[in-house]
Amino acid sequence: MNIRMILKSLGIVIIVEAICMIPSLIVSIVYGDNGTFAFVYSIIICLVTGLAMYRIKADNKNFYARDGFSFVALSWVTVSVFGSLPYIFSSSITSFIDAVFETVSGFTTTGATILKQVERLPESILFWRSFTTWMGGMGVLVLTLAVLPTVGAGFFHVLKAESTGPNIEKLVPKLGQTAKILYSIYIVITAILVSALLIAGMPLYDALVHAFGTTGTGGFSSRNSSIAAYGNIYIEVIITVFMFLSGVNFSLYYQLLKGNFKGFYKNQEFKFYVSTVLIAILLITLDLNAQGFFSLGESIRYSSFQVSSIITTTGFSTTDFNLWPTFSKIILILLMFIGGSAGSTSGGIKCIRFVLLFKIIKRDILNIIHPKAVHTIKIDGKTVNEDTLAHTMSFFFIYFAVFALSSLFISLDGNDLVTSATSVVATLSNIGPGFGNVGPMGNFSSFSWFSKTLLSFCMIAGRLEILPMLILFSSYSFKKAGI
Amino acid sequence: MNIRMILKSLGIVIIVEAICMIPSLIVSIVYGDNGTFAFVYSIIICLVTGLAMYRIKADNKNFYARDGFSFVALSWVTVSVFGSLPYIFSSSITSFIDAVFETVSGFTTTGATILKQVERLPESILFWRSFTTWMGGMGVLVLTLAVLPTVGAGFFHVLKAESTGPNIEKLVPKLGQTAKILYSIYIVITAILVSALLIAGMPLYDALVHAFGTTGTGGFSSRNSSIAAYGNIYIEVIITVFMFLSGVNFSLYYQLLKGNFKGFYKNQEFKFYVSTVLIAILLITLDLNAQGFFSLGESIRYSSFQVSSIITTTGFSTTDFNLWPTFSKIILILLMFIGGSAGSTSGGIKCIRFVLLFKIIKRDILNIIHPKAVHTIKIDGKTVNEDTLAHTMSFFFIYFAVFALSSLFISLDGNDLVTSATSVVATLSNIGPGFGNVGPMGNFSSFSWFSKTLLSFCMIAGRLEILPMLILFSSYSFKKAGI
Repeated sequence: MNIRMILKSLGIVIIVEAICMIPSLIVSIVYGDNGTFAFVYSIIICLVTGLAMYRIKADNKNFYARDGFSFVALSWVTVSVFGSLPYIFSSSITSFIDAVFETVSGFTTTGATILKQVERLPESILFWRSFTTWMGGMGVLVLTLAVLPTVGAGFFHVLKAESTGPNIEKLVPKLGQTAKILYSIYIVITAILVSALLIAGMPLYDALVHAFGTTGTGGFSSRNSSIAAYGNIYIEVIITVFMFLSGVNFSLYYQLLKGNFKGFYKNQEFKFYVSTVLIAILLITLDLNAQGFFSLGESIRYSSFQVSSIITTTGFSTTDFNLWPTFSKIILILLMFIGGSAGSTSGGIKCIRFVLLFKIIKRDILNIIHPKAVHTIKIDGKTVNEDTLAHTMSFFFIYFAVFALSSLFISLDGNDLVTSATSVVATLSNIGPGFGNVGPMGNFSSFSWFSKTLLSFCMIAGRLEILPMLILFSSYSFKKAGI
Repeated sequence: MNIRMILKSLGIVIIVEAICMIPSLIVSIVYGDNGTFAFVYSIIICLVTGLAMYRIKADNKNFYARDGFSFVALSWVTVSVFGSLPYIFSSSITSFIDAVFETVSGFTTTGATILKQVERLPESILFWRSFTTWMGGMGVLVLTLAVLPTVGAGFFHVLKAESTGPNIEKLVPKLGQTAKILYSIYIVITAILVSALLIAGMPLYDALVHAFGTTGTGGFSSRNSSIAAYGNIYIEVIITVFMFLSGVNFSLYYQLLKGNFKGFYKNQEFKFYVSTVLIAILLITLDLNAQGFFSLGESIRYSSFQVSSIITTTGFSTTDFNLWPTFSKIILILLMFIGGSAGSTSGGIKCIRFVLLFKIIKRDILNIIHPKAVHTIKIDGKTVNEDTLAHTMSFFFIYFAVFALSSLFISLDGNDLVTSATSVVATLSNIGPGFGNVGPMGNFSSFSWFSKTLLSFCMIAGRLEILPMLILFSSYSFKKAGI
């Protein structure tokens, strides 16, 4: 591996992170809370470390695939460690493991928390917590690419490793330009959401925090009882819609801006995503109403909010869905695995992989019935190459293997089956809440340091779609690289 | 589809089933229980129906792949319906759905029961119940092939569809001969087990019933508390060993008979199977002992019995593992999915598919790191063709899709998450007991008729490794066949 080049690049990432702490510093000055010095110290430490690393001389500027993947994985670990400094310096979170867990949870847009009472924390710290979610949504490195003047072609691996979904198309030939377009769309959507929340009656600070949590599909709230705290149906509807919108592939919005309206309704992943959302809302509404949980109107309200929140892996809640009937719970668990669209800010396995999967299975059955015919698989009219299909299938297996093994280790904490298994899917799919003790009214504070570390690994592995983390830890990359 | 040829062949299967009821008839005469007339009526009905169907004229004797798969699926449904007659005629089980469930559970070697008190039933009926398990273990159609004088080459699809695992090798060029060899090995192993159980002090009737349940990996017992009823450590050890042996690919025993001792320890699936068993026993032993459930000796005893019972999908129990700590439970759940070896009598996904899977994932990671190299996948020194790899991966997905959807529908009965999900894996992997209400001390009696029908489907789908059931129900086979 090109260690020097990786360290040098990590330096840039840490400098960008320092700059990203400035808005939180401003919030702390405005509110006069005890976060000010925490952010000043954190920014200084990040700048000094980042600049020192940036000055490392790297004669060989080549970045191969394995360097790219390893760099992405290391970046996410690094920003999480440095991002935990404000929590520690402000004494908001005293344990290092807990502070890293909370930061990882933010950047990976998970929204799982070890905090029992979020309302006790300074405004600036909660702002930072939600801001990490927003940065992580579109990608910390995509942000870095967006602000860098020029980047080499080798960095395409970076964009590939950090973007969600099996395939990434450059919107425009230049990589930095693609990153800028994505971030611009992201900023515009967030701004529209903030305005909508203000109009619905939310204070500015709350509107910003919840907008970050929504468009980043993170789900951190500044209130203990999440969105339920506002008891405002307009806010619920606005957030339901924007969670849904954040689970859409952002390149479709770019197509829309270019006047290509057909892009949406011809896109197979979008159709799958919309159908899944509608079917899930319908089934849960019928179940909740039939079992006498809510009136029909309330059933529609709660089910649409929760479906939108879970499939986009946001994790906001307006009611304790841990108490819902098993049928509704299983649908939510299936949505936890499915996740949103590729190229969105959401987590999970992603809709496109399920679309591919159904086509692969259909082809396999056709092959058995008609062994002599050749069947190719197409998405949106284009033939998908066999490598992508192979990666897609491997991804499912690696995902389930990580899920199964992690659940096994987490169970050593002595929790029940449902808590152990859903704490893993809640982190691996970057959702936040699961079921049992980690339900929407629970939190992750009672886990051991070992489990918190493992769940932090799951969050990063889930956000980066596992492969970069595997390659970083895989003996191959070290062996073949001769180190 | 060649409907006439399929119906004619089904006739033969029903005649073979009638002949297989004779041992149970003898048992009922010996015990003088009320099963005698039930078996006489059942045998007459089977013979008359079977002969009538066998007389159907089929000019076209061709059996294509889709005919083979559909025939296998239909055969299993047919033998289950006719096999339920003795339960109904003897009034042992009064509901038709329940009787079919119990018969399907037998033939598919699942061992799930709707009976609350098995000891109330006549000896001959319990004998039939366990005998269905034994027939189903090696395959009802393999048995038919073994007794038929000659069969056409088209019947290779039948052997392929009914045998467990992704690939079937003919041991000898002739298909009928292969079936005869497999059944001979099966009979010898069963006979050795019966002798061992007699020596350990089991009465002959009990020894036969439990030998059928063990070598068929079914797990039906004639006692309410299963093997625990005997409180005899020798019996436990013998059954532990023979359950393990029944989870091995039977072609390895044939190799052994031919003097090929290397076959065992060079076989990659066997190595995976043995390692999995040993690791699972070790981990569960440590967990049970550390959590203070049992002494070290007892922990070894209970964990080795249960691991052997669950990985081979037999389902016997010597203790209520539903009360074990979550860590041990998760290991058992993973074993439920894994299952035994291909070409054995056990269910589940099968070890060989996991061996292939790990190789596929390893290749995929290698392909990303070294995109230009070509990596082939080998098992036991032979290159595996890409079609087999594709089928293997599709199988996993179809398996999990059936698992997820069935769990969702089963949850409509109002059971909790664990009961709903494990009742499906317990039937789909042909194990018998699951966790929660369907734990080793529970049973399937409280499910609705809809759930019992769905779980019966899961048992047959699991036993036939899903594809034949899918092809039977798939619109393709009908459309393309022009019917």
